[in-house]
Amino acid sequence: MLKKNFLLSPGPSKVPESVMLEMAHPIFHHRTPQYQAIFSDVTSALKDIFRTKNDVFVFASSGTGAMETSISSLLSPGDKIITVNGGKFGERFGLIGKAFGIECDVIDVEWGKAVDPKIIEDKLNKDKSIKAVYTTLSETSTGVLNDIKKIAAVVSKTNAVLVTDAISGLGSDKLETDEWGVDVVIAGSQKGLMLPPGLAFLSVSEKAWKLVEQSKIPSFYFNLKKYKKSLDKNDVPWTPAITLVLGLQKVLQMIKAEGMEEVWARHARLAQATREAMKALGLKLLSDFPSNAVTAVRVPDGVDGGKLVKKLRDEMGITLAGGQDSLKGKLFRIAHMGYCNQFDVIQGIAAIEEALAALGYSFEIGAGVKKFQETWIK
Amino acid sequence: MLKKNFLLSPGPSKVPESVMLEMAHPIFHHRTPQYQAIFSDVTSALKDIFRTKNDVFVFASSGTGAMETSISSLLSPGDKIITVNGGKFGERFGLIGKAFGIECDVIDVEWGKAVDPKIIEDKLNKDKSIKAVYTTLSETSTGVLNDIKKIAAVVSKTNAVLVTDAISGLGSDKLETDEWGVDVVIAGSQKGLMLPPGLAFLSVSEKAWKLVEQSKIPSFYFNLKKYKKSLDKNDVPWTPAITLVLGLQKVLQMIKAEGMEEVWARHARLAQATREAMKALGLKLLSDFPSNAVTAVRVPDGVDGGKLVKKLRDEMGITLAGGQDSLKGKLFRIAHMGYCNQFDVIQGIAAIEEALAALGYSFEIGAGVKKFQETWIK
Repeated sequence: MLKKNFLLSPGPSKVPESVMLEMAHPIFHHRTPQYQAIFSDVTSALKDIFRTKNDVFVFASSGTGAMETSISSLLSPGDKIITVNGGKFGERFGLIGKAFGIECDVIDVEWGKAVDPKIIEDKLNKDKSIKAVYTTLSETSTGVLNDIKKIAAVVSKTNAVLVTDAISGLGSDKLETDEWGVDVVIAGSQKGLMLPPGLAFLSVSEKAWKLVEQSKIPSFYFNLKKYKKSLDKNDVPWTPAITLVLGLQKVLQMIKAEGMEEVWARHARLAQATREAMKALGLKLLSDFPSNAVTAVRVPDGVDGGKLVKKLRDEMGITLAGGQDSLKGKLFRIAHMGYCNQFDVIQGIAAIEEALAALGYSFEIGAGVKKFQETWIK
Repeated sequence: MLKKNFLLSPGPSKVPESVMLEMAHPIFHHRTPQYQAIFSDVTSALKDIFRTKNDVFVFASSGTGAMETSISSLLSPGDKIITVNGGKFGERFGLIGKAFGIECDVIDVEWGKAVDPKIIEDKLNKDKSIKAVYTTLSETSTGVLNDIKKIAAVVSKTNAVLVTDAISGLGSDKLETDEWGVDVVIAGSQKGLMLPPGLAFLSVSEKAWKLVEQSKIPSFYFNLKKYKKSLDKNDVPWTPAITLVLGLQKVLQMIKAEGMEEVWARHARLAQATREAMKALGLKLLSDFPSNAVTAVRVPDGVDGGKLVKKLRDEMGITLAGGQDSLKGKLFRIAHMGYCNQFDVIQGIAAIEEALAALGYSFEIGAGVKKFQETWIK
């Protein structure tokens, strides 16, 4: 069979061919008015996507670098924070906090469930010394969407700052940073922003900046004060990942042209149709409160989840993701984030049907694709 | 005039067109055997370029990230180190050390001079508690080459570890990591490695690894122990900058095909011819002990250095670098690093002549290019 490689994984996600070629533009120097014009354009357009008037900082790193920054540049050793362990990425905030001597009050949530904002509210009411609450918009490892709007309503009434990892959610799941009152929003390049990995982003509210000014954790590369000083001169303190920033300018133009609300609506429709398609195949979703970035589906009994993902990738060219950590072998995850339309997902569903059939799972061939189409068209 | 943009700046340096296009290859997932094969190839080929049997770690960051790692992953607060302030990048080690609570014994060297290994020897003899010596192979800001071989001969006799920033030097200036006894070598993607910025590298000797095991500075994103644990499984702990790693595979193949000694010899010849050309124009070099990566030339009296660099870039399309910090306006720097041959530099020298003539500097037109050709051909 002719195998075509096709990405439907929750990061990296597909990059538009035109953007890949744009990034193949001959390299140029970054300490020039030419680059500064691009960077100025990019930092302004990022604010629109982040739905904020706050500064959005750009790092040459993967998303974890910005997650670290949200801890190392805001806190001091011994500070108390709330983290939510409801998946691999929520868990990571706790690990980073621990590494920097932060006292983490970890809310354990069954992987596949969203965190209850009431638990956060109770904790904040009980302990006024909590400096910040670390949450995840779309938890990539489980496909769960946390209710950041409700959490923000709770946190914004207190002295604590709300940090949200929107690495996989930004651009897929609605996030109204300023309107809801989210103080720090973290993103990465390789998800909804349709770029290769290598850039991370962080927006910081005035309320959060007060923490930055008091922070006593040593830092250098990710030191936000250095970034702020540079940003005020339309610059970054260290050599930027020039080609990715050039690509960023293009994808931000694409998002602007489509319109943020329209982008959200497209993702909602893709995700809804994907979920219905999976159910039509007799499969169960992991989450009751699912993200529009990625759909996590339980591998049916009798099918080896590892084999399924491997077969799709190595024999059929379609890269999905499996489960991580405790969910290894039990899940497959279809991303419908970023540069993704209905026909991309239809391809993916057809491939999943083909692989499931080959692995002996019994269902009506075509039922998933048909249901996707019906739901999409409605 | 038809303006063609052309880079002769000391980072970013030119990227081969074929590599730019290779990096425009459709993005693929990194937690796959397909990516692991590339990464395994790359980490092995990096050892050849670094001239070491030690592990070479790859970070998604700019070079400063690896500089930070060489401090935060090796030291503990209160540790004593020697740093050399003989240029902007040597100075940076002192700044990073300070940020992490390290006691830095800073050797101040006039910018444009190399550090005297004897001073390092005396300091190490006087104070046995010094944990590490931080040096720079090619100091990009001044075009100075430090005598790392001699410094290594001094440091390797002690308990201290030698760290060398070879960000702009690697691939241009001879560096025999294991043979000389350099414990930690730092590099970046955008210089001799002919890639866009966004990757940083660090090799670590067994002697240095003992410091890593004792280090008490909190870290996460750049934590070397996490990288080591991943590397042993042919992986990295965080999402890698996939497209750049793909490009890296290609440039490492190019360097291997040319041969490391041949690459060094080419740079030596380019640098020698460039220096002679500059002298033939009546210009003065900044350094007596010059690097083969970049040549720093004093702007002649009566010429505005800022205007010179701007004219070259904005009117003629040739990007050189000016002076930094205390050398601002007083220098121009021509890089002959990475993907650079004699005809590239001839172009640059012709452009410099044209710009100098336009700015009223008096010299024999063509004398620089002629001298370059003569020296190159000899």
